[in-house]
Amino acid sequence: MSHPTAPAKSPVSSSHTSSGRPLNIALFGFGTVGSSVARILVESAPERLHLTHIVNRNVARKRVDWIPGNVVWSEDPDSVLNESAVSAARPDIVVELAGGLEPAGTWVRKALAAGISVVTANKKLIAYHGLELEQLAAANGAHLLYGAAVAGGIPVIPGLEHGLAGDRVERVEGILNGTCNFILSKMEAGAEYETVLAEAQKLGFAEADPTEDVAGYDARAKLAILMRLALRVQVHPEEIESRPITEVAAIDFSYARDLNCTIRQIARAERVEGRVAATVRPMLVPLTSPLAWSRGTENMVVTTGHYGGDVVFSGHGAGGHPTAVAVVSDLVGLAQGSCRIAIPSTPAKVGTELEVPHYIRFLVNDRPGIVAGIAGALAHENINLNAMLQKPGYPLDHLPFVVTVEPCRTSALTRALKEIGRMPSLLEKPLDLQMLEK
Amino acid sequence: MSHPTAPAKSPVSSSHTSSGRPLNIALFGFGTVGSSVARILVESAPERLHLTHIVNRNVARKRVDWIPGNVVWSEDPDSVLNESAVSAARPDIVVELAGGLEPAGTWVRKALAAGISVVTANKKLIAYHGLELEQLAAANGAHLLYGAAVAGGIPVIPGLEHGLAGDRVERVEGILNGTCNFILSKMEAGAEYETVLAEAQKLGFAEADPTEDVAGYDARAKLAILMRLALRVQVHPEEIESRPITEVAAIDFSYARDLNCTIRQIARAERVEGRVAATVRPMLVPLTSPLAWSRGTENMVVTTGHYGGDVVFSGHGAGGHPTAVAVVSDLVGLAQGSCRIAIPSTPAKVGTELEVPHYIRFLVNDRPGIVAGIAGALAHENINLNAMLQKPGYPLDHLPFVVTVEPCRTSALTRALKEIGRMPSLLEKPLDLQMLEK
Repeated sequence: MSHPTAPAKSPVSSSHTSSGRPLNIALFGFGTVGSSVARILVESAPERLHLTHIVNRNVARKRVDWIPGNVVWSEDPDSVLNESAVSAARPDIVVELAGGLEPAGTWVRKALAAGISVVTANKKLIAYHGLELEQLAAANGAHLLYGAAVAGGIPVIPGLEHGLAGDRVERVEGILNGTCNFILSKMEAGAEYETVLAEAQKLGFAEADPTEDVAGYDARAKLAILMRLALRVQVHPEEIESRPITEVAAIDFSYARDLNCTIRQIARAERVEGRVAATVRPMLVPLTSPLAWSRGTENMVVTTGHYGGDVVFSGHGAGGHPTAVAVVSDLVGLAQGSCRIAIPSTPAKVGTELEVPHYIRFLVNDRPGIVAGIAGALAHENINLNAMLQKPGYPLDHLPFVVTVEPCRTSALTRALKEIGRMPSLLEKPLDLQMLEK
Repeated sequence: MSHPTAPAKSPVSSSHTSSGRPLNIALFGFGTVGSSVARILVESAPERLHLTHIVNRNVARKRVDWIPGNVVWSEDPDSVLNESAVSAARPDIVVELAGGLEPAGTWVRKALAAGISVVTANKKLIAYHGLELEQLAAANGAHLLYGAAVAGGIPVIPGLEHGLAGDRVERVEGILNGTCNFILSKMEAGAEYETVLAEAQKLGFAEADPTEDVAGYDARAKLAILMRLALRVQVHPEEIESRPITEVAAIDFSYARDLNCTIRQIARAERVEGRVAATVRPMLVPLTSPLAWSRGTENMVVTTGHYGGDVVFSGHGAGGHPTAVAVVSDLVGLAQGSCRIAIPSTPAKVGTELEVPHYIRFLVNDRPGIVAGIAGALAHENINLNAMLQKPGYPLDHLPFVVTVEPCRTSALTRALKEIGRMPSLLEKPLDLQMLEK
């Protein structure tokens, strides 16, 4: 294939495929994901990738016999990061799998500042400090890759960077938390929240304190990362409204079914009239929507592009092996001289103002005038009532019933619900769930 | 973010993000996809990407007023490719959208040999000559990208290269031809083949001669590309067995429904006992499978990884805008100095030997002994009968009925069907459809 005359050097930079010496990899964190990463590196032996260090607290109890004997086991991240730049033992890439903001953040900053590239699965660190860390990497000739930070083994981040960079993504929505999806899909099948939570905890899908998952904080961090790559806006995760799935009761699944829907924790962000709206909350999802397909701990992301329309990514969002696939894929990319597509982004304020249909469940002490009061408050805000559902068999003094309304402004509905909240027959604050339209 | 002491140069090659002068882009082919690519380049103006040439036959009738005045319209690919290497008008990237093996192949070879990178959506060229063209590109410091060649706007190729390179993909199956999916999903809803084909032709989804699509040749080329990137085997597309969807009749959808299945054209390849089996044919798909979800012209790909399990990609596989998104994403990647992940592959012989369940539909002149004969021939090959279905209302001398069998070797079933074929009461060759198990 060589040619008699040397071709002109292309101004498109050429690849560095497989050139250079093996890259030393230091694994920071040897839990479920860390040991899966080591397992794949040992079994598949991808070109140029050389596992040299495993760093973990109490590392002695972590030792396993299938790790090659020349790998250094250490409890001291600093000593590994401080290896002299000319030492053969210096890591070229730190794989950070400790999670959380600290001490992971300190290690990552130290590595990048020393020109050591970092591959991480740390959604929280990337959601809170990704932009700063990317700048630190660029300033020091290092790379920062985090394909595993959102939806583990599903290539959503590589797909956005390498496959959808040519589109203008206008909406991203998804199921980003496997624990909530496990709980809600079990509740859909008839189980009670407390029972399913206990089962999830027993199976290792949920923490002893499940707040991070069920309150939406985990999904919110992932959504902030997707918003930067898909919608190209920089937002602070804590500015994204989140509502806990614990608000949803068994009866809501029953009403949802009557509406040909189910209920899922949905993370959703979109551009609306030049602004950005984002939220993480339980929503009604039509059974015909791809988002209703995912069961158990599966994750799913749907992007809507101005040019390319909807793209669905789905699979195992968490777990050792799937997450490790994303980490090792990033390592293979680094070894081959590929790089991330830098997607430009701008700071943005996040709002909640959307125009979507809602499901509102009331619990009342039934008296004449309740429906008239609710309908009146909605009409006052120009909100169109769509359906009223009331299942038989409940006591009149503790009666749940449901109203669905046509697409309306969040702010208008908030005002109407405030007005309705003044009615003395309401036994609790109404449950307001957004409904996905497809 | 700069640091007092300069960091050691990282052996991980650093990115060339946004460096260098604008890249001249010559668009070869200004049909549906070509004009969508130009539209996105003009509207979105991605950094460093500068549309300079549009090449098409009878280019005068192609001219549109929204293309900037400084773009050169030409009918002569050679004059564009022959621009002097020092000329400011020389293209840096040729976007080949003419399709087919020739003259597209000649243009692409000429460009690559001159060190000009190529982005193409040409599945046929890549399926038949991709490996040779990649070597030609590498030998000349040029790049060859073809993210649009399979499943248009769905980032399957970037997902495999950048997100699943760390896994060992063992199976890939999908709906790769929108025309067949449109026809079969309409037939599922009750329409006849000829009627739907005519509708698809009217809508522009099917060619006047639909053979390339309905016989499976289009999907076969795409499957060959996916096999190289996912299973890492080099196969000639024509070695992949393909069977036409025209074998399927309305009654098969009716029987499929009784089995909680539908029928789709499935392209499927997997490693089985160290060998590779691949086929494109109409198959029974359980309604619970993601592959049953796609409607109309949608495409879907499901990969099964040794480590990461199943990943589903779905969306608009064809059409001007979705395909153009993949092309422009490749261009953005080139402008940013990213490169493809080189996935090593080895030549392989393709077989058809699988162990899967089958649906077999017979058309018989009903006589005593038929069922015994069929059951006997299957038993002789140790094939377990699973179900027998016979709908009422058909004449006894022209009676369709269906047998499903448990997973069995392709070769064993072929022998049994040959034996059954000798029975005089059979009015036609039985229709044998593989059944997907999930």
